[in-house]
Amino acid sequence: MPLDQPDFEPPAVNETRAAALSLIERSKTCLLGTLDEQGIVDLRAMLNLKHEGLRKIWFSTNTSSRKVAQLKINPGADVYYYYQEKFEGLRLSGRILLRQDVESREMLWSEGAELYYPHGVSDPDYTVLEFRVETASYYSDLKNTILTID
Amino acid sequence: MPLDQPDFEPPAVNETRAAALSLIERSKTCLLGTLDEQGIVDLRAMLNLKHEGLRKIWFSTNTSSRKVAQLKINPGADVYYYYQEKFEGLRLSGRILLRQDVESREMLWSEGAELYYPHGVSDPDYTVLEFRVETASYYSDLKNTILTID
Repeated sequence: MPLDQPDFEPPAVNETRAAALSLIERSKTCLLGTLDEQGIVDLRAMLNLKHEGLRKIWFSTNTSSRKVAQLKINPGADVYYYYQEKFEGLRLSGRILLRQDVESREMLWSEGAELYYPHGVSDPDYTVLEFRVETASYYSDLKNTILTID
Repeated sequence: MPLDQPDFEPPAVNETRAAALSLIERSKTCLLGTLDEQGIVDLRAMLNLKHEGLRKIWFSTNTSSRKVAQLKINPGADVYYYYQEKFEGLRLSGRILLRQDVESREMLWSEGAELYYPHGVSDPDYTVLEFRVETASYYSDLKNTILTID
């Protein structure tokens, strides 16, 4: 059954925005969709590490990963958070900047990250993805609400 | 942190296949990724209703939905099942056939579906998506395993 009903603008936009932010804050992971070299959708789960409102999301990844190669060609991406017990979802669409500067690396570094980046915070195989959201829609109770991004 | 590590073929392929099928069977919903008219990834959660091994997945949707319009132009799609407590994920890539025949409609119909299709099983706004899987990869314990589709 469809979870993308026609879009509409409800009166309680602030409540919807708060619910969308709460979904991000409750999520351990989310889905990241990119396009591969053949223009085919590629999906994978990502750890949900850090966000700034609905405007920016940061992810950590291996520089050598498939997604980094894809994003160099096409930076467009979609991120989806969802809570399957309640059919609640947040779709964010935008672009990803690849970051390897010290500030971005340190901002996202956490204990245990050596598992992925054995050379530590300066590991050349460590890249930060800065996802800049352009459009957002929140789905809950069979309704899809477009949220503005400021 | 990345959840798509380099692919490899493990010895215990049958166990991996069983784990992938179990993930489908445990999931209430999954993510469906399509391409919109501008070639941008579009993601939404879908109810997980029926599957045939790893080969076919069926979804139910509104004929008037955005995804049906997108799939008419580009039938390529990705489906992702995941269990966020364990960072376990299954990515399926393939093509979707749009079905409106009686057999497909009845196969997927369930009690309560009138909520989405008020005219019942023959509602013209009811379309069955038949997803034919071409490639599959299962992610668990930091490993990504390619599964063959027979």
